[in-house]
Amino acid sequence: MRKALELAKKGYGKVSPNPVVGAVIVKGGKIIGQGYHKFYGGPHAEVYALKEAGDNAKGAVIYVTLEPCSHYGKTPPCAEALLRAGIKKAVIAMSDPNPLVSGGGIEILQNDGIEVEVGLLEDEARDMNKVFLKYITTKSPFVILKWAMTLDGKIATVKGESKWITSTETRYYVHQIRNKVMGIMVGINTVKKDNPLLTTRLDKEGISPKAIILDSKLKISLDSKILRTINEREVIIACTQNIDYKKKLELEKMGVSLIIIPEDDFGRVDLSCLIKKLGDYGIDSILIEGGSEVSFSAINSGAVDEVICFISPKIFGGDKAKTPVGGSGFSKIIESKKLKRLKIEKISEDIMITGYL
Amino acid sequence: MRKALELAKKGYGKVSPNPVVGAVIVKGGKIIGQGYHKFYGGPHAEVYALKEAGDNAKGAVIYVTLEPCSHYGKTPPCAEALLRAGIKKAVIAMSDPNPLVSGGGIEILQNDGIEVEVGLLEDEARDMNKVFLKYITTKSPFVILKWAMTLDGKIATVKGESKWITSTETRYYVHQIRNKVMGIMVGINTVKKDNPLLTTRLDKEGISPKAIILDSKLKISLDSKILRTINEREVIIACTQNIDYKKKLELEKMGVSLIIIPEDDFGRVDLSCLIKKLGDYGIDSILIEGGSEVSFSAINSGAVDEVICFISPKIFGGDKAKTPVGGSGFSKIIESKKLKRLKIEKISEDIMITGYL
Repeated sequence: MRKALELAKKGYGKVSPNPVVGAVIVKGGKIIGQGYHKFYGGPHAEVYALKEAGDNAKGAVIYVTLEPCSHYGKTPPCAEALLRAGIKKAVIAMSDPNPLVSGGGIEILQNDGIEVEVGLLEDEARDMNKVFLKYITTKSPFVILKWAMTLDGKIATVKGESKWITSTETRYYVHQIRNKVMGIMVGINTVKKDNPLLTTRLDKEGISPKAIILDSKLKISLDSKILRTINEREVIIACTQNIDYKKKLELEKMGVSLIIIPEDDFGRVDLSCLIKKLGDYGIDSILIEGGSEVSFSAINSGAVDEVICFISPKIFGGDKAKTPVGGSGFSKIIESKKLKRLKIEKISEDIMITGYL
Repeated sequence: MRKALELAKKGYGKVSPNPVVGAVIVKGGKIIGQGYHKFYGGPHAEVYALKEAGDNAKGAVIYVTLEPCSHYGKTPPCAEALLRAGIKKAVIAMSDPNPLVSGGGIEILQNDGIEVEVGLLEDEARDMNKVFLKYITTKSPFVILKWAMTLDGKIATVKGESKWITSTETRYYVHQIRNKVMGIMVGINTVKKDNPLLTTRLDKEGISPKAIILDSKLKISLDSKILRTINEREVIIACTQNIDYKKKLELEKMGVSLIIIPEDDFGRVDLSCLIKKLGDYGIDSILIEGGSEVSFSAINSGAVDEVICFISPKIFGGDKAKTPVGGSGFSKIIESKKLKRLKIEKISEDIMITGYL
């Protein structure tokens, strides 16, 4: 199964919005066939593995990272292909949450007397397809909240200096994350203060995610760098009804997509509502890159699935220096949010901590 | 040498103010003798190793974590013992910074034709004796600054709740650190807010470090819990001249040691001056346990040698929530402090990051 998970990862970034899948066929202690889902609409992992195994597949065991499909989609159902090939046993990491499959594949196999085992390395299989899983079951995007701070929890000095907190390698890593998500979200304060491009800048070719700017009152300057990236990727501004409609027209003329969202209790764009809308719009994954206010709203609204925190071993100090999650905060420890399944990694001189909410 | 370092560690907490030392004698690829410095005033590591090796030591190689001594202290010089035993080669992790030795041992060996190699695993040997090295070369204590924070850099919620941020295991680990240092330092705000005992509380017997309270204006309440620990260990209050002398007398009558220290630019106890004075007083190691103001003063004054940061995977949020290092802060990134030789460890659900300044 570990081999199948490795194979599956080769499909990253090529199969979206499909899940990545890997399959390995074993007989007599030897691998006789392997495959992975290579591109969207292309053959599934099982098909490649069966083809490689050929007639030898009769009586063999298949390890597959996701339940074989049972429906006619872009390809015929894999569960039936396994039957035809004479597979004896199927070890499946996780069942398919896709309502079109969801247990159907397993049922087909079991009805035909194939031994089925589900759940081997399931956590890893789920992590691998976390975006797919969230989106197909909720139609809401998988939301990653990212920040970079010093060891004493500052995202800028008392004078607001923030370039750069982390190392070049860490910043490159962030561009790799940007390359994997469909949307990148920031607040208007970040646009005003940092005037960022929010594009994906890698050595090899990268795709810039759609830019999503939270700008309740439409205060964005028409000179903002981000508006110049409009030929490269879509720029979406989420605002409330409480705006200057002439400016809205101007922005639309420039090619910006404006979305009007109901106000929250503070007169700002209601984040939960926006995130849901972005899901309807086909965006399956969003990276939130700050600042402090937006990060708190996102966490408080329950929209965040994963947190990625980069820590630079610097100490800025300062009561007045900005911290990664600001806003009104949680009053009691018991009300605060806690991350699960923590992972810690070193990237150059920095530390990366990730976890799920 | 790795074996010698392991042996040396067995002396932790028993040899102070001496350094921990380990020695291994090897001949024909086999260990024929080993030893470590077991207690203050007792025989050195080399003596044990030589005794175990006996006559076999002739022509052997010794691996020792610290330069063998050359002076008559509590025991006769080890360098001469090595000569007498007929040791052929000495591999030494680091030379002894003690001005009474400092190269003298190596010189004795080399003058007699023994091959000497210095520097193998030196970093590890230095780390092991960091307190001894700092104190013997500067007469100033080794200062550890410790804090515990959430993943978003908060040491309390916006409402000031801070019990507890970290797990039971992490808090137990802190008591193990307290058990190893001679002094523990906090600011008066921490005494007023948390009313802590600052004692060492372990399953097995532990020693509570001397408590050092920074209380420039002598604002401490006579009811503070910490003043009730005075029978268990010394309680030192550092204040300026700008105090109520009647209260000073009262505190002294209770058994508190008062130290009057010159004011810094803000009218507070000058930290550098105090730390130096505590060194003169025989304190070789201090753990600073906050709060936010004291931590910044300590870092800014250059007094801190090591930082230990515990991170709990919680998110408190809040612009107004306290962060571990407050004060006026560093305005520019280039002026900020940076930790070297980072170590990252997991303790239960928390993360411990340590580094040197």
